Amino acid sequence: MGAAIVSALLTEILIPVAAVIGIAFALLQWTFVSKVKVSPERHGVPNNKNGLDDRLLAEEEDGLNDHNVAVKCAEIQNAISEGATSFLFTEYQYVGIFMVAFAILIFLFLGSVEGFSTKEQPCTYSKDKACKPALFNAIFSTVAFLLGAITSVVSGFLGMKIATYANARTTLEARKGVGKAFITAFRSGAVMGFLLAANGLLVLYIAINLFKLYYGDDWEGLFEAITGYGLGGSSMALFGRVGGGIYTKAADVGADLVGKVERNIPEDDPRNPAVIADNVGDNVGDIAGMGSDLFGSYAESSCAALVVASISSFGVNHDLTGMCYPLLVSSMGIIVCLITTLFATDFFEIKAVKEIEPALKRQLIISTALMTIGIAIVSWLALPPSFTIFNFGAQKEVKNWELFFCVAIGLWAGLVIGFVTEYFTSNAYSPVQDVADSCRTGAATNVIFGLALGYKSVIIPIFAIAVSIFVSFSLAAMYGIAVAALGMLSTIATGLAIDAYGPISDNAGGIAEMAGMSHKIRERTDALDAAGNTTAAIGKGFAIGSAALVSLALFGAFVSRAAISKVDVLTPKVFIGLIVGAMLPYWFSAMTMKSVGSAALKMVEEVRRQFNSIPGLMEGTTKPDYATCVKISTDASIKEMIPPGALVMLTPLIVGTFFGVETLSGVLAGALVSGVQIAISASNTGGAWDNAKKYIEAGASEHARTLGPKGSDPHKAAVIGDTIGDPLKDTSGPSLNILIKLMAVESLVFAPFFATHGGLLFKIF
Amino acid sequence: MGAAIVSALLTEILIPVAAVIGIAFALLQWTFVSKVKVSPERHGVPNNKNGLDDRLLAEEEDGLNDHNVAVKCAEIQNAISEGATSFLFTEYQYVGIFMVAFAILIFLFLGSVEGFSTKEQPCTYSKDKACKPALFNAIFSTVAFLLGAITSVVSGFLGMKIATYANARTTLEARKGVGKAFITAFRSGAVMGFLLAANGLLVLYIAINLFKLYYGDDWEGLFEAITGYGLGGSSMALFGRVGGGIYTKAADVGADLVGKVERNIPEDDPRNPAVIADNVGDNVGDIAGMGSDLFGSYAESSCAALVVASISSFGVNHDLTGMCYPLLVSSMGIIVCLITTLFATDFFEIKAVKEIEPALKRQLIISTALMTIGIAIVSWLALPPSFTIFNFGAQKEVKNWELFFCVAIGLWAGLVIGFVTEYFTSNAYSPVQDVADSCRTGAATNVIFGLALGYKSVIIPIFAIAVSIFVSFSLAAMYGIAVAALGMLSTIATGLAIDAYGPISDNAGGIAEMAGMSHKIRERTDALDAAGNTTAAIGKGFAIGSAALVSLALFGAFVSRAAISKVDVLTPKVFIGLIVGAMLPYWFSAMTMKSVGSAALKMVEEVRRQFNSIPGLMEGTTKPDYATCVKISTDASIKEMIPPGALVMLTPLIVGTFFGVETLSGVLAGALVSGVQIAISASNTGGAWDNAKKYIEAGASEHARTLGPKGSDPHKAAVIGDTIGDPLKDTSGPSLNILIKLMAVESLVFAPFFATHGGLLFKIF
Repeated sequence: MGAAIVSALLTEILIPVAAVIGIAFALLQWTFVSKVKVSPERHGVPNNKNGLDDRLLAEEEDGLNDHNVAVKCAEIQNAISEGATSFLFTEYQYVGIFMVAFAILIFLFLGSVEGFSTKEQPCTYSKDKACKPALFNAIFSTVAFLLGAITSVVSGFLGMKIATYANARTTLEARKGVGKAFITAFRSGAVMGFLLAANGLLVLYIAINLFKLYYGDDWEGLFEAITGYGLGGSSMALFGRVGGGIYTKAADVGADLVGKVERNIPEDDPRNPAVIADNVGDNVGDIAGMGSDLFGSYAESSCAALVVASISSFGVNHDLTGMCYPLLVSSMGIIVCLITTLFATDFFEIKAVKEIEPALKRQLIISTALMTIGIAIVSWLALPPSFTIFNFGAQKEVKNWELFFCVAIGLWAGLVIGFVTEYFTSNAYSPVQDVADSCRTGAATNVIFGLALGYKSVIIPIFAIAVSIFVSFSLAAMYGIAVAALGMLSTIATGLAIDAYGPISDNAGGIAEMAGMSHKIRERTDALDAAGNTTAAIGKGFAIGSAALVSLALFGAFVSRAAISKVDVLTPKVFIGLIVGAMLPYWFSAMTMKSVGSAALKMVEEVRRQFNSIPGLMEGTTKPDYATCVKISTDASIKEMIPPGALVMLTPLIVGTFFGVETLSGVLAGALVSGVQIAISASNTGGAWDNAKKYIEAGASEHARTLGPKGSDPHKAAVIGDTIGDPLKDTSGPSLNILIKLMAVESLVFAPFFATHGGLLFKIF
Repeated sequence: MGAAIVSALLTEILIPVAAVIGIAFALLQWTFVSKVKVSPERHGVPNNKNGLDDRLLAEEEDGLNDHNVAVKCAEIQNAISEGATSFLFTEYQYVGIFMVAFAILIFLFLGSVEGFSTKEQPCTYSKDKACKPALFNAIFSTVAFLLGAITSVVSGFLGMKIATYANARTTLEARKGVGKAFITAFRSGAVMGFLLAANGLLVLYIAINLFKLYYGDDWEGLFEAITGYGLGGSSMALFGRVGGGIYTKAADVGADLVGKVERNIPEDDPRNPAVIADNVGDNVGDIAGMGSDLFGSYAESSCAALVVASISSFGVNHDLTGMCYPLLVSSMGIIVCLITTLFATDFFEIKAVKEIEPALKRQLIISTALMTIGIAIVSWLALPPSFTIFNFGAQKEVKNWELFFCVAIGLWAGLVIGFVTEYFTSNAYSPVQDVADSCRTGAATNVIFGLALGYKSVIIPIFAIAVSIFVSFSLAAMYGIAVAALGMLSTIATGLAIDAYGPISDNAGGIAEMAGMSHKIRERTDALDAAGNTTAAIGKGFAIGSAALVSLALFGAFVSRAAISKVDVLTPKVFIGLIVGAMLPYWFSAMTMKSVGSAALKMVEEVRRQFNSIPGLMEGTTKPDYATCVKISTDASIKEMIPPGALVMLTPLIVGTFFGVETLSGVLAGALVSGVQIAISASNTGGAWDNAKKYIEAGASEHARTLGPKGSDPHKAAVIGDTIGDPLKDTSGPSLNILIKLMAVESLVFAPFFATHGGLLFKIF
């Protein structure tokens, strides 16, 4: 077996140090962003004294001395920030009640496993050892759950704060050129990326160390309790994604349907009453929702790896360094992403619009390449040359270089998924151009081609996921899959930075329009935004790919913990679970899409009402009533997020309690294999429609110009596609990966209860 | 164990007698239909002398004495019939080549299992007995395959002939009232339903008896070879559905996009060059394709039940009556459907438009109720009180009443699926009305609501399927599932009659429009057609539900034959199969939808060209060039059906050969659980959009009138939805159930080869 090169003490030091470095780097980026001044008090000071060296500017500066613009931007930013803050607080209140109720449920279910016994009990995997009593496992699981939920809330909220802090600054910087604007948006994204990654790691690390004070040598119990952290993170993420997704798309669809289609006014026009709600939506859906989501993925993949490792030779022999391998990989990820970020902000400079997408893609490639070396180093230093893992009852010997391969294949599969997503959603390639071309014959062919594109875009990612699963499972069973998921998420800081960059640019464009800035500024922010659409799709690709691996790993851990030795499709209990599980993503999507539709209809009515009843609105002499639209989106999303949320949260409980662990296994497997496909196709179809529309609007090629300009019939068809894509790509699609992860982690947490008391229905009959 | 009440000799007599009764009944219906005269030679004879008693007519007779109309109808009917015949012959030529090649492949693969040995070998399930040599199994499987393919061709072709014979007759009868038209359309549907059901049973019965001359007591080998019949039927059905589906929708979408949207001329206007192609499409896609498809389902479910039964106590003890239980159930089905048909044609009479849908629904209820009694009788007479079946290595004792429950639950699950489908696709209920209402805010919300409706409509059918699977598997393992599938299909004659009724009415409406008949006639045929849309969706629901059960039964038979004892999701080989299998329906749908899109674009160009270059076309003074449009649809569908067909046919071969039986099991399970959902949602979404459009057009309620009339903005949005739904409901959706069945039956046929030589890739590494 041998021992790792890095000592346990060094491990204990390295992890928090990496986390602190990540947080420090985030704060440094924040400082840079904060040097762009938007505060109205300062609008007397010439804007070119705003602290950045302007000599490098290659492009023409535009409206740089218009002080009114800065004041307007500040006002709009405030309105957006207030709307977002108020929504999030309302959301957190409702979800908070749900979380407390669910925490009580966790305590009751897990506590009841041994009748709230306070006696030590034999461990599940080593019967001769004594493990901590069920009551305390219930308490610590509950605490971990609440901790995960709170960290998730903090992650989402911080992300939103940063984004609403950065949007107007990006707009103002766009006056100086696209390069400056890009750096501001990207740095702000990086603040969010690093804060979330480092924060997630640090809280988990502290929690483990605090829990260890009680658990001592009972690592099995310790890491089982820690899985509550993943459940908490993911539960919060579910509501964040669904609520935020409904909010943003209700506002977006509502604003577009009346503004663009009926009133023929441009996007983000300040006369549109839903325009503030739309911009708030970007921040609560795409930023806060996505932040919670990716934090959830990260928390779950770490927990999955840890709980599987706890019954390996690391756990049994109390090899702390080996045990903390997942955390060390994440620590290395922060350092690698830090270096990668410098390539975007310091080593190169964006001078033209066409350099933006390559710069973002370079971030992915650089981080993946560097991280491969990083993983090799961690695997060499932190793992013993060989160790044994638990493989559904059998022992399996794994070498350190084999585990390196597991993490690396996850990492590279992520890159493959990212590039395939880019190919299918960027308007630089033929798929989106074909979709744009099909707009010639109207909206119907656009929709048919767009749906077909989404379906087709599933093929390669699924093969990439399948290969990762096969290789990592063959090398290191479920532990291999868990670390492969971690590998895919190891560059999360960069991924999140790129992801957050998109909505920030989108908002910047909105602010430019609302503040009445020149067309040149809007064109620059549009260019940033188009690249952002593609990167958003890439980010979603990562999120879905990692969700598939994470939930499989969690599923494996659940099966181990529920003491099932096989999940045989040929038994009716499992098969009915499989087919019903495969149906759940459809049920869930039906709910979320219908919710967006209904909320959008309400928004449409209100916007129409304002246009019809407020005199001078269309002429721009009176201000619309933004607040009512914000309230409609808030109320609708709060109300509508409950049923889909409940479906996901309650299904494992109901199935486990009444049908037992075999059927639940089937449900998890079915939801996983079916949900992944819908999630990928929905987000790519939506991304492609959005960019097909942008392709026609930008008119950058001979072909694109034959389809345009704005307002032409093909463009109108493209707008319809874009509107249909909105709920697909921003509500139902991305929520699905939470569905599959959350059901798996929930099953894992409740596994002892289901194994003991589950399957009531079959017991009765 | 005991013995059955019915003797072997009586069984041998009862089955062919039932088949012959079915065929005779079909011919009788044909005679009734043929009494409506359309031949141009007879147009001198007053039409009200056409052999039917006219005294019963309650409605006003319209244009009954216009002889030109009859001539025109005959001309149009001829054109449609010629186009359809020519397409089918072209299709059969290409598919024929493929089928011969595939037959050779079957012979080579199966023959090579024992190195083309001509020596007898020990049986798989009773090692002490001698079974027929592999070479002869290969020969007989190949023969059965060709027989299945030919029967499928005959079924599809006959259906098409009947439909093109009946369409103009329905139009002419519509002059006398909706009741007369309904009876003509329904009787024609019945011709098809009874011919197909009886024909399928008879051919299968004869094949078994002929094969038995060689096989003698080796029933295991006999029924294994017979599975080739299912494979042949389904392979042909695949190409029929895909080719016909692309044909019909390319023509339909192409005709609508230029005619309705650009030129603002009504549907089926004779000035539209694609109008004949569109009507041909209904006959080759919805009639011939569906005929082949349901014949395939029937053949497969019979084969699945027989092959599973061959290793039960029936097979081992050579209990012919018990063995033939599946055929006896089908025989009873023919008799029950015969009685049911009389309720529509003789016992009741349709007097008003609103009675059509209830009459069709009554057919479903009556046939299901009667068949329940029928099954009870067959189970009591043909089964011994108890018998044993083979359950993956173990023996299981089954009572005759338990098997009755299995068949009955399948039958009733079919009815549930049918009614849920009706609820979601008929414009009498709120789901379709909500979709219609969402057209107020444009095409985008219509599409969002329609997709959500389709997703939601999956829920109850999946639960119905899951319950059937659970109950029938618990009672009689895989044999239970096979007979449950058979139960769902036992009323196939009625199902097909209802199904075929739809496209016949659709064509009748087209002919009325083209022949320039009055609006009243068109309204009557439209009412028939609207009911037909719903029943088509119901038919598809049945087809999909039975496909799920059939493929699970085939899957079980495959697993038994490939000697796998379990399909454990937790092994990487199975799991990668599962996730890739779940992806296949998406890949397949992407192909078929893109095909429809591309073919439609070609059609659009041709139609536009004709409108622009043929002088006097819009004015109606010159005839368009119908033949070129027919040729475009023919060429496009022949060319485009190959890739999706190859994907389905080759996947099991490639996976089985290179990855082995475990991975293939995963692929089958994944494709099944994922494909069922997409198939149901696609066909219901499409049906709902179609009927939402019809709801607005008909304007039958206060609500509907606020959305209309034709040409209003909501109506335009509804037309877009309808066009998008076309490929979903008529091409990709219904093809998916063939995908899941075909892959399963193909795996079953090739199982001995895969078990012996499969998994090359894993053997190498």
